[in-house]
Amino acid sequence: LSGSLGAFANESTQEAIGDAKNWAIQTGDYANHRYSTLDQITKDNVKDLRPAWTFSTGVLRGHEGSPLVIGDVMYVHAPFPNTVYALDLNNDGKILWKYEPQQDPNVIGVMCCDTVNRGLSYADGMVFLSQADTTVVALDAKTGEVKWSVKNGDPAKGETATATTMPFKDKLLVSISGGEFGVQGHVTAYNIKDGSMAWRAYSVGTDDQLLFDPEKTTALGKPVGKDSSISSWEGDQWKIGGGATWGWYSYDPDLNLIYYGSGNPSTWNPSQRPGDNKWSMTIFARDADTGVAKWVYQMTPHDEWDYDGVNEMILADLNIDGKDTKALVHFDRNGIAYTLNRENGDLLVAEKYDPAVNWTTGVDMNRDSETFGRPAVVKEFSTEANGEDENTTGICPAALGTKDQQPASFSPKTSLFYVPTNHVCMDYEPFRVSYTAGQPYVGATLSMYPAPNSHGGMGNFIAWDATKGEIKWSIPEQFSVWSGALATAGDVVFYGTLEGYLKAVDAETGKELYKFKTPSGIIGNVMTYEHGGKQYVAVLSGVGGWAGIGLAAGLTNPNEGLGAVGGYSALSDYTALGGQLTVFSLPDS
Amino acid sequence: LSGSLGAFANESTQEAIGDAKNWAIQTGDYANHRYSTLDQITKDNVKDLRPAWTFSTGVLRGHEGSPLVIGDVMYVHAPFPNTVYALDLNNDGKILWKYEPQQDPNVIGVMCCDTVNRGLSYADGMVFLSQADTTVVALDAKTGEVKWSVKNGDPAKGETATATTMPFKDKLLVSISGGEFGVQGHVTAYNIKDGSMAWRAYSVGTDDQLLFDPEKTTALGKPVGKDSSISSWEGDQWKIGGGATWGWYSYDPDLNLIYYGSGNPSTWNPSQRPGDNKWSMTIFARDADTGVAKWVYQMTPHDEWDYDGVNEMILADLNIDGKDTKALVHFDRNGIAYTLNRENGDLLVAEKYDPAVNWTTGVDMNRDSETFGRPAVVKEFSTEANGEDENTTGICPAALGTKDQQPASFSPKTSLFYVPTNHVCMDYEPFRVSYTAGQPYVGATLSMYPAPNSHGGMGNFIAWDATKGEIKWSIPEQFSVWSGALATAGDVVFYGTLEGYLKAVDAETGKELYKFKTPSGIIGNVMTYEHGGKQYVAVLSGVGGWAGIGLAAGLTNPNEGLGAVGGYSALSDYTALGGQLTVFSLPDS
Ligand SMILES: O=C(O)c1cc(C(=O)O)c2c(n1)C(=O)C(=O)c1cc(C(=O)O)[nH]c1-2
Ligand SMILES: O=C(O)c1cc(C(=O)O)c2c(n1)C(=O)C(=O)c1cc(C(=O)O)[nH]c1-2
Repeated sequence: LSGSLGAFANESTQEAIGDAKNWAIQTGDYANHRYSTLDQITKDNVKDLRPAWTFSTGVLRGHEGSPLVIGDVMYVHAPFPNTVYALDLNNDGKILWKYEPQQDPNVIGVMCCDTVNRGLSYADGMVFLSQADTTVVALDAKTGEVKWSVKNGDPAKGETATATTMPFKDKLLVSISGGEFGVQGHVTAYNIKDGSMAWRAYSVGTDDQLLFDPEKTTALGKPVGKDSSISSWEGDQWKIGGGATWGWYSYDPDLNLIYYGSGNPSTWNPSQRPGDNKWSMTIFARDADTGVAKWVYQMTPHDEWDYDGVNEMILADLNIDGKDTKALVHFDRNGIAYTLNRENGDLLVAEKYDPAVNWTTGVDMNRDSETFGRPAVVKEFSTEANGEDENTTGICPAALGTKDQQPASFSPKTSLFYVPTNHVCMDYEPFRVSYTAGQPYVGATLSMYPAPNSHGGMGNFIAWDATKGEIKWSIPEQFSVWSGALATAGDVVFYGTLEGYLKAVDAETGKELYKFKTPSGIIGNVMTYEHGGKQYVAVLSGVGGWAGIGLAAGLTNPNEGLGAVGGYSALSDYTALGGQLTVFSLPDS
Repeated sequence: LSGSLGAFANESTQEAIGDAKNWAIQTGDYANHRYSTLDQITKDNVKDLRPAWTFSTGVLRGHEGSPLVIGDVMYVHAPFPNTVYALDLNNDGKILWKYEPQQDPNVIGVMCCDTVNRGLSYADGMVFLSQADTTVVALDAKTGEVKWSVKNGDPAKGETATATTMPFKDKLLVSISGGEFGVQGHVTAYNIKDGSMAWRAYSVGTDDQLLFDPEKTTALGKPVGKDSSISSWEGDQWKIGGGATWGWYSYDPDLNLIYYGSGNPSTWNPSQRPGDNKWSMTIFARDADTGVAKWVYQMTPHDEWDYDGVNEMILADLNIDGKDTKALVHFDRNGIAYTLNRENGDLLVAEKYDPAVNWTTGVDMNRDSETFGRPAVVKEFSTEANGEDENTTGICPAALGTKDQQPASFSPKTSLFYVPTNHVCMDYEPFRVSYTAGQPYVGATLSMYPAPNSHGGMGNFIAWDATKGEIKWSIPEQFSVWSGALATAGDVVFYGTLEGYLKAVDAETGKELYKFKTPSGIIGNVMTYEHGGKQYVAVLSGVGGWAGIGLAAGLTNPNEGLGAVGGYSALSDYTALGGQLTVFSLPDS
């Protein structure tokens, strides 16, 4: 997909993204491959890698996302207060400019899962920042001056922002967070030129709000019909129904479609929201110009475990059963890896990508079945069936899923997907909760622990064959791999660990080739760029995110942090808070 | 001096210090050489140095001092809240234990020059921390448990602590800060066993308080006589007379003397305190057992510029004019480098170590003169002569001196001193101020700028011949070198810069051999250790201290931060706050 300039696409943006020396958007390319054709660093020489220079952001807590590189300038962001730096690559990272938004710190209290930010994007000489308080700012890439800014939501209602933005054509796609506060999730396209709104599409709501065409918008090949969302909720619950959009975005210029997933239905207590709760937990394919949905696929109808469907949609051209297929591959929180036809939303493969997954026996793949595409729920692990104030134990995966926000990568060379995963299970006790704007609307008490009867660790880094739905190899990790992977043409795959290691492994075999202990736990995503004829690999350290919330927010009660504090308490034996960029390269000689 | 075990000295402590694989006290050894006999890293191979592992302290603001290494464990400290970590060197720096004192954050408001801490010390299986709030804690080195703790002062009166402690024999020497709050400075020796007080000696006060023997305590060879301190002040001003002891300590086991300097007289407005203001700005040599002063030497009588005399006393055996001399070498804030006979306090050499120094024409070296040992003040730069509410301009050095707390090192191989210096001048306008306990008692408005008509930078890193009082070579630096130097038997000298570089230079020539940009500005001191047969070099990054107070405390008004904010404002173009340890080594092969 990379390099295929769609006729209508914004060519300067596509060029910036297409130049392998750059890293112009968080996902590397529109297809979310997180793959680089740079090949100076190879599986043979990566053992000689070493830090070339480093930079502290001056901010603690979880550092997600990665820096961008456009030509001679690197753009680095930080979690709240969302400081942005432009660093001069010709001058050892000298600070060209710095942008420090003034934000009401009260927003910290309505961020569910640490004060993270998944990074900047670049287009048309501007750098885009989506602040925690939902202000979207376009900064002049040369000077850091604000070209325009727009408020995308209201933190007083629990609306916040953590995701990156995606520039496509003449628009910028912007997310909203707040599934734990009963927001009504949406994505919004702003005009890049001036920040005016082009279109907004809700995840749950009326057809108008959804930008659904009841006749033409399809789900597994069939029109969704009228009021497909609100009819799947009881009463007005949909108005506080969640479906936040805090994950990643992809774009297929040829199909002119954008892809993303929606988050959990609110509240976490399933008994309070009978119905399928459409279109929470759903993959959306929308027309890039109008926002109208072409197709949808709900992965976890009537969620009972907080398996947000927001993980990245990787657009890959795969040969499936002998057929060249424009596929979309998605590693869902619910533990199932989906391969769909991205043109029409047809479901091709749905397999567990961690054998520990137990809440479902699997997805019904019988096209003739009433329940085609639906996961079969194991009653023992149904928090709805067990009911309110009952503790359902031993559910795998935990709420943070077999994978959370940490993006996978795809190498066209190996045709494999490299997936940072969680290997964590949970107990889940739903309780009745009432809605107050701006107050947590969670309704469940959780505790988390490593998947039992396994290697004892809380994560695996796996290679996945999406054509067959099979794990090719798996590296056990002590903690969840909360860092995004990078695959390169040097046949090396990089990822970070919560203890703080940057690791490089062989793309074919998974053999560890190099590791380095960075200052703090890594929940950032590895990126690469070329400057002055030399390939660099860079990653942000700074432990936090949902997995690291105990350290990040100083919580120690095991049930705090939506249940994550206890599970990850051993992290404090390995790392402390930080906020640093480490840039690696090979020695000169 | 290292290795010479005094008969009365605590042998286990001396052994810990004497083992070159360790770094057991902040100063490397009792002589404050900051020199290591380790020689795997040489001037020939240092170009191949690279970070081996890193660690974030989880704290921002200025990180002074250095980690300690005792055997397989590294002890790392942080500025307020003064977190302490024990890291397992056998396990990539895994955290063995962590100590996080609970301190009233109000202490931050009475710390003059950032929330710094100059590090831990080690003796008898205990690690000693002097907290910002003046609590001294003895931690079990194995478990981090508090063995004893004692309160050395009262932050409500502006008494704080930033200096390291020095274990000697069965005692621990402890400082007090607060010269900008009118404290009555003192050093205190606590019994290492249980934290009970052995002796306390004030810098200004009655002979009893000073632990002076009017007949036996000498100044330049003559008994000081009765009431030498209080008679040099007007009225009761001495009771709020300053002379804090926030610098470094040395110890000569053979002579059984400890050495240190006292800080500025309070207030900074000289007109409010007529007299010599003894014994502020003074070098003290005290009996290690009783604390009784053997000799004193006041460098800057009646200070008019805030030239605290607290910089380290380096104990070196030098050949001066053909005579083997037990010397003490001291690079004072006032811009003069002093060489004294450390047995009797005789003044041997006193020369400017920055040609920019202009407030004095020099020290009277005529032994027959009334003013022997006294600096001759240039009237133009006398803030007392120019008077209150008059701005005296162009004084060199600035209040932070030609050198501040950043310790120099001494190589017995080259017999040279390696001195991180400031190259900064100032305008100084004294004003009348009244004393309120716990309130700033400063009484002067300052502004600082690079030394005019020079290289434009604010610092130099110099090599000094203390026998002759001559600069051997000088490396111009853009900013003050606020980091402590390390010299090694590999003929390499290391230091850090405020931009964040760790630099290695040739001990003979000063030629730059290696540099690496660490995450944040370096005001920590470089140390070295050996582990698993391999030599490592480590340094804390984390911009701050007085020079970096603008960044550290988020100040932007040029006169804020006691005048330092304006002078160092360009720092924000190079670095941001941090708190990281970077450990360097040579590649394995
Ligand atoms: O529903 C939401 O609005 C929402 C928002 C976020 C977020 O914005 O970070 C997370 C989640 N949910 C969530 O379920 C989750 O697991 C999660 C992990 C993280 C993270 O950054 O580590 N954020 C979020
Ligand atoms: O008089 C005092 O009590 C006192 C204390 C301190 C300190 O404790 O850090 C400094 C100073 N004075 C001082 O004059 C000074 O230049 C200074 C620099 C620094 C630093 O850490 O960068 N501290 C201090």
